[in-house]
Amino acid sequence: MNQTRSASTETKPLGSLTRGRRRRTPPGSAPGTLIADPAAQRPLVRIIGYGPEDVEETQAARIEDVAQACGKWPVVWVNVDGLADLDFIRAIGRMFAVHRLALEDVVNVHQRPKVEEYEDHLFIVSRMASIDDAPHTEQFAMFLGDGYLLTFQERAGDCFDPVRKRIRLHRGHIREAGADYLAYALLDAVVDGYFPVLEDYGEDLEILEESVLAAPQSDHIAQIHEMKRDLLALRRAIWPQREMISALTRDASKHIAEQTRVYLRDCYDHTIQLIDILETYREVASGLVDVYLSSVSARMNEIMKVLTIIATIFIPLSFITGLYGMNFRSDVSPWNMPELAWYFGYPLALGLMACVAAGLLYFFRRRGWLGGRRGEDEGD
Amino acid sequence: MNQTRSASTETKPLGSLTRGRRRRTPPGSAPGTLIADPAAQRPLVRIIGYGPEDVEETQAARIEDVAQACGKWPVVWVNVDGLADLDFIRAIGRMFAVHRLALEDVVNVHQRPKVEEYEDHLFIVSRMASIDDAPHTEQFAMFLGDGYLLTFQERAGDCFDPVRKRIRLHRGHIREAGADYLAYALLDAVVDGYFPVLEDYGEDLEILEESVLAAPQSDHIAQIHEMKRDLLALRRAIWPQREMISALTRDASKHIAEQTRVYLRDCYDHTIQLIDILETYREVASGLVDVYLSSVSARMNEIMKVLTIIATIFIPLSFITGLYGMNFRSDVSPWNMPELAWYFGYPLALGLMACVAAGLLYFFRRRGWLGGRRGEDEGD
Amino acid sequence: MNQTRSASTETKPLGSLTRGRRRRTPPGSAPGTLIADPAAQRPLVRIIGYGPEDVEETQAARIEDVAQACGKWPVVWVNVDGLADLDFIRAIGRMFAVHRLALEDVVNVHQRPKVEEYEDHLFIVSRMASIDDAPHTEQFAMFLGDGYLLTFQERAGDCFDPVRKRIRLHRGHIREAGADYLAYALLDAVVDGYFPVLEDYGEDLEILEESVLAAPQSDHIAQIHEMKRDLLALRRAIWPQREMISALTRDASKHIAEQTRVYLRDCYDHTIQLIDILETYREVASGLVDVYLSSVSARMNEIMKVLTIIATIFIPLSFITGLYGMNFRSDVSPWNMPELAWYFGYPLALGLMACVAAGLLYFFRRRGWLGGRRGEDEGD
Amino acid sequence: MNQTRSASTETKPLGSLTRGRRRRTPPGSAPGTLIADPAAQRPLVRIIGYGPEDVEETQAARIEDVAQACGKWPVVWVNVDGLADLDFIRAIGRMFAVHRLALEDVVNVHQRPKVEEYEDHLFIVSRMASIDDAPHTEQFAMFLGDGYLLTFQERAGDCFDPVRKRIRLHRGHIREAGADYLAYALLDAVVDGYFPVLEDYGEDLEILEESVLAAPQSDHIAQIHEMKRDLLALRRAIWPQREMISALTRDASKHIAEQTRVYLRDCYDHTIQLIDILETYREVASGLVDVYLSSVSARMNEIMKVLTIIATIFIPLSFITGLYGMNFRSDVSPWNMPELAWYFGYPLALGLMACVAAGLLYFFRRRGWLGGRRGEDEGD
Amino acid sequence: MNQTRSASTETKPLGSLTRGRRRRTPPGSAPGTLIADPAAQRPLVRIIGYGPEDVEETQAARIEDVAQACGKWPVVWVNVDGLADLDFIRAIGRMFAVHRLALEDVVNVHQRPKVEEYEDHLFIVSRMASIDDAPHTEQFAMFLGDGYLLTFQERAGDCFDPVRKRIRLHRGHIREAGADYLAYALLDAVVDGYFPVLEDYGEDLEILEESVLAAPQSDHIAQIHEMKRDLLALRRAIWPQREMISALTRDASKHIAEQTRVYLRDCYDHTIQLIDILETYREVASGLVDVYLSSVSARMNEIMKVLTIIATIFIPLSFITGLYGMNFRSDVSPWNMPELAWYFGYPLALGLMACVAAGLLYFFRRRGWLGGRRGEDEGD
Repeated sequence: MNQTRSASTETKPLGSLTRGRRRRTPPGSAPGTLIADPAAQRPLVRIIGYGPEDVEETQAARIEDVAQACGKWPVVWVNVDGLADLDFIRAIGRMFAVHRLALEDVVNVHQRPKVEEYEDHLFIVSRMASIDDAPHTEQFAMFLGDGYLLTFQERAGDCFDPVRKRIRLHRGHIREAGADYLAYALLDAVVDGYFPVLEDYGEDLEILEESVLAAPQSDHIAQIHEMKRDLLALRRAIWPQREMISALTRDASKHIAEQTRVYLRDCYDHTIQLIDILETYREVASGLVDVYLSSVSARMNEIMKVLTIIATIFIPLSFITGLYGMNFRSDVSPWNMPELAWYFGYPLALGLMACVAAGLLYFFRRRGWLGGRRGEDEGD
Repeated sequence: MNQTRSASTETKPLGSLTRGRRRRTPPGSAPGTLIADPAAQRPLVRIIGYGPEDVEETQAARIEDVAQACGKWPVVWVNVDGLADLDFIRAIGRMFAVHRLALEDVVNVHQRPKVEEYEDHLFIVSRMASIDDAPHTEQFAMFLGDGYLLTFQERAGDCFDPVRKRIRLHRGHIREAGADYLAYALLDAVVDGYFPVLEDYGEDLEILEESVLAAPQSDHIAQIHEMKRDLLALRRAIWPQREMISALTRDASKHIAEQTRVYLRDCYDHTIQLIDILETYREVASGLVDVYLSSVSARMNEIMKVLTIIATIFIPLSFITGLYGMNFRSDVSPWNMPELAWYFGYPLALGLMACVAAGLLYFFRRRGWLGGRRGEDEGD
Repeated sequence: MNQTRSASTETKPLGSLTRGRRRRTPPGSAPGTLIADPAAQRPLVRIIGYGPEDVEETQAARIEDVAQACGKWPVVWVNVDGLADLDFIRAIGRMFAVHRLALEDVVNVHQRPKVEEYEDHLFIVSRMASIDDAPHTEQFAMFLGDGYLLTFQERAGDCFDPVRKRIRLHRGHIREAGADYLAYALLDAVVDGYFPVLEDYGEDLEILEESVLAAPQSDHIAQIHEMKRDLLALRRAIWPQREMISALTRDASKHIAEQTRVYLRDCYDHTIQLIDILETYREVASGLVDVYLSSVSARMNEIMKVLTIIATIFIPLSFITGLYGMNFRSDVSPWNMPELAWYFGYPLALGLMACVAAGLLYFFRRRGWLGGRRGEDEGD
Repeated sequence: MNQTRSASTETKPLGSLTRGRRRRTPPGSAPGTLIADPAAQRPLVRIIGYGPEDVEETQAARIEDVAQACGKWPVVWVNVDGLADLDFIRAIGRMFAVHRLALEDVVNVHQRPKVEEYEDHLFIVSRMASIDDAPHTEQFAMFLGDGYLLTFQERAGDCFDPVRKRIRLHRGHIREAGADYLAYALLDAVVDGYFPVLEDYGEDLEILEESVLAAPQSDHIAQIHEMKRDLLALRRAIWPQREMISALTRDASKHIAEQTRVYLRDCYDHTIQLIDILETYREVASGLVDVYLSSVSARMNEIMKVLTIIATIFIPLSFITGLYGMNFRSDVSPWNMPELAWYFGYPLALGLMACVAAGLLYFFRRRGWLGGRRGEDEGD
Repeated sequence: MNQTRSASTETKPLGSLTRGRRRRTPPGSAPGTLIADPAAQRPLVRIIGYGPEDVEETQAARIEDVAQACGKWPVVWVNVDGLADLDFIRAIGRMFAVHRLALEDVVNVHQRPKVEEYEDHLFIVSRMASIDDAPHTEQFAMFLGDGYLLTFQERAGDCFDPVRKRIRLHRGHIREAGADYLAYALLDAVVDGYFPVLEDYGEDLEILEESVLAAPQSDHIAQIHEMKRDLLALRRAIWPQREMISALTRDASKHIAEQTRVYLRDCYDHTIQLIDILETYREVASGLVDVYLSSVSARMNEIMKVLTIIATIFIPLSFITGLYGMNFRSDVSPWNMPELAWYFGYPLALGLMACVAAGLLYFFRRRGWLGGRRGEDEGD
């Protein structure tokens, strides 16, 4: 996973800051103006009606099918995947007496998680973690009314199959409970869906951490930056979720039964755990920048030390060799380089060089740039 | 856009911190003292009166025209572009019984967005994003009273044409609603007008991000600094807007009908989204400074490594060549450089140099400064 | 101004952290102990009594003059400049029934701005920006009672002349209003007095910003540090002012009329604007440290690159020249430096050097350290 | 301890971010689904029943033993070590009428500390510091009901032996008090158990601090990073503990007697002290990064200075030796290196070199890079 | 003072993080367990009884002496210096009906400042600045009851002598007021005792600041780090003091008379001033790290520049000298170094070198690395 991330460094950042933000209604439009996202999918409507005794699943092709299903069961869950067919969505909205501002929010799929109380229903917006394309999130809107739950998703494919199975197989007491419990079950699935995503990031972060500590490489900083950006994006999705669920738990609303609030409180705890993990990762990722910079400068220090030691030892030696490579003519004057003609001239020159080198080595060792100290530094 | 920005690096910063702040009434002046901004435009008054059945647009040349228009329609929108003619503004203020402190705030065009309740009207100040000169903003002041909305803009040119069109063409239910809904519609247009500005910054930020990650250049830091300053300026305009709209949504006021509050809540959500995007950009921009510094120091590290390797290998070799370039006279003593006269002296010297070079190369490779490791580092 | 600042770098910091803090009553003294600041000025008392019809200004030499003036006018403003004569101040305090703790606060001129309600009067402490010695501030204490306003300043010279002029010339409705309006007018003058000081800092900051971006110099960091310290000092004066004015606006007190609160709200808005500007400057100044460090390290990078390129090219070349400068005796062996005697030996050696140099140049250019890339980097 | 830590640098980070997070119920599961942690221990049940007169300790093998013990004593403490046997835990849960959500939280051992009020009991989750494996913490769940305290621990081994001893030996008034006092005593032991852990970190931090200040080494940064991560982990355990105990102290609950609240307030004070210490350590650890970076760059500066001085002095000298090592033939022209044949040529050349060297040394000393100043810098 | 600090760098940090934290009651002990600090002093009890008319000071050897003194005077101040004799302290505690938790807090001398209301008295814990060993603080506990004030200090020696003198000499109205006023007077002395400590730090900070700006030295960073740690320690003592005094001012308690609250409000203001000064110092100290790093890197830059200029100029020159130092035999070929035999060979070579050097100097000057620019940089 780490590999894929770093491979996509060049293309991914471009998209992630502005993605999903461009296609808005122009400033000044009438509120409630619905404008389809050109990339939106055709809606697919699945209806699950159930009560303690029985359950029925149907796919609605037309708006009439939806109307027919409602009222027959204690709880009806109408789920719409895909938001391309605005007429259909408007028709459903009319059927459930949805406020046009709420309907606009369903179609503009970049809402923050929130809960709004309308006369007939609660309007709940939350965001699902996208499994294969984190940190991007998909908007999930719910209308919780009397005996029905109307949900809208951007795309087919969600994390609600375990919930559907519990309804079908009559596991837990979901079939006995009302639509508010169903709404809780879906919210809980949404919240729990962030845990595997965060765990993946946790693993990536650990791999990154380890490799930065072992040997900092120049693309690490881009990886850390991307990690921080992704965690920032997740944060923007998760934090308001917390407020939203807190509002559901706290505010008195006739649509949510008292016994369901206990479950929502549990769901709230999970959100707090998510935030805890997320903030920890963010702090660790921030700390990694320091680690990276320190490692790079420690390495540079090391390199400089080697250069300094070798250069500093040989520079005076080379000067001496240069000195005796001069061509002053000793024949014209006894002052001109008489050393060249000494009997032990060469050995003395070599000895001088050895002394200079030894002196410098001693100086370096005393400074702690050599040997023992260096061994401590590098651990080899 | 990125190009223009970096081109204007030298001239722009000068103006942006103190712009629009100099021309204040001197300390100690009587409150309500109106002092015209020398750069202010001559006022241009446009009046739109409308009701469910009909609409009428006029331009008012004199104050009497304004008086005439009021009272004829369920809702009258008096819009003043330009704040240079203080007498005219005072006259309008008197007509609508505006408090002199509020009128002073209209003319001093650097107010923070706020809402103030007066006896006869609500006084709402907000700031519009300037389209061609972001991050600068234009003050937009509204007086929302019974059946009228009096608005003041610094300059002609605004983002309200879609609203005017909705009034003219009877789109949505704006013609049925009161002046409070009109105020909402204008505020909503103001808030939505920040989205394209922020999107432009988002794009610039991505381009900058990409190019810093690819190859840090010395003017990047100035660009990041300017980006941070611009976002800071936008933040100062947007944050108090949020408080202002929140106050409108929350506080009971007879001038705002209950059904309009639902729309204001929607507008508030948009402001929160703006803040979300803005704060994300600010964090990303702050992170970019780290990325820049890391990239620069990684590059420096790279350069130092090359220098070190080449210098460190050749310095001892050059010493050896210098050694045998000395002119000690081998004729006066058998100790003086006998190597020069050995049969294999030269090949042996070359061999010695090769050994030293090989040893150093081996040392560098073991340290990971060469070959394999370096290949990892640079990806080539 | 920039020049003066940097010139005074060495002397100014010493005084600014502890200035005005040393001369306190010793720990454990009885509360209300008045100890004169040795540097305090002799008090100068100016009394302005006024009502809607008339106004009278006198200078009080003795405490009896003050007593005489009070009660004759609807509003009496007793202003004391200079706090050296403790007996006089105690006498005035007794006259106006001032609590001894409040009187101690008047003399200890390093109070935070605050408002305290006593039985007979409100005690308001605020701080005036010193015009010629920012960021230092002067304490300004007010006692607002029934029909009188008693004010104490550290030094003669203030920003209240426009207010006095409004009283004399009957401008605005100050003559009709009570002592609370006078207190507001003075507070407003105090708050507005910070704007020019901040504007000066804004200009200095821009000049500094520009010159850091153009060419970072080693004294810039001291200038930024001083700028940050000055802004910090201003912040400590302005923030509590905000709380103080907010308390005046909010808290019910019989000494402040309802219609004056509208004006105080306006004054509060100005304080918020001050804080806005101040915090922006602080963020910009903080960002400048990053810019400075980045610029310095970019410059260093540039210097290193030049050194590296020149050194790296010439080091191998010098090695070759050294090689053929060795004195191995080619007469004793055909293996000893036969190249020296080749017909094209010298041209071949030169060619070899040219090849090495060309190879290294190619390597550098491929790395982007030369030519095109460098041109991009430096823009020349 | 410092040694062990740094030795385990490579393996430890891997586990600590995601540890204990993987084994969750899959998203969408019914709430209250119990899934045993594969690493969980078999439950071991110890029952202590006591009253003012007597005390009895038993180990329960079967669920019936637990039932039998309850009711016989004024206070019964049922402690379960190990959470592997879900059937057993479910049975106990049924016996004490525990809500299934609470039971799920008991088994999912990564809950944040919290307190939840149920009809029959308070559910309190807290986290014990693991003595040998800090910063990891063990979940400790309590159900405080009427006359009983039911506790669950992940593993055998806890810090409650002093409490058991106080019950057995009738020390303090624990035997006279109710189950709420027992719950307090356990919570107090849990909170106090963090002190030795934090003290260990404090000592490690001081050792690290001292060694960073003495001589920064390249693995210090990894140690600081790990320290910061560990403190972050502890913070996540301690902060919510504070909220939890504060809620116990504050909220009226029939399960906690008024006189026990005084003790809980004392326990709350301890938590605040923990947080105080923790935050201080975190700030000190953060400051250490700066110290490390500064020390490293100061050392680099030192190394560069030595290189510069030696290189800069010898480079011109070597140039001079090179100059007079050239082989221009003085026989073909009087212009070709006549110096070589001067009578004092060699001494003059040596003198020139000495002058250059002296000049450079003077220049360096004037710059403060040599001698006196350097002595100040390094203190040797 | 600066000198002493830096001298003690190596030994002091060790003690300051964990000092006074080790000797706690073991986790799980019964609350109220008193364990004497081995370093505690033997208690010395001084009793001052006073009323408006008279005052009496005695030293109590036995507990009976204390009992005797109480009740005889309107106000009795029992002061205990030293906490070693637990039996004595328990006896006093029994006498004044002190809760055993409060008594435990008296002996465990690392409590945070706090105020707790018990039935018979207020329990107030505060911390006195140690005069000779800042930033360490001494715990000062007070029990304020009806007509008595019982205080405990860790050591003999405090800052309360001026208060005792005021009682003896009947200065101010302390003799007329009750025990609550005495408690205020002591608290005020405690708070005011921090001012000289902070002033000392302020002076040290300024000296440090100046010397960092003048010439950064490698031990500065350790000094800044220690300064930040000391200020952090002071912060931990002062901040909770603020809450404590605020609680005394705010909360209704029968032990504190209404007229004393005015004095406590004054004391609260002093605490806010302390915090103001402290936070300013902390920000300035944090900024100093940036200044230090910048100065160090500016110095390094300077050094690098000199090295670069000298090396870069002489490297090509040395190459030329090396070139003409080669021994190619011009006798075997006309191609072999014919320059050596040119008539103007040597002057031409010197001229070539001069051109190269001049070219490089021109290049450097154009880059701004030389002369004019450098002059600006260094100001010499």
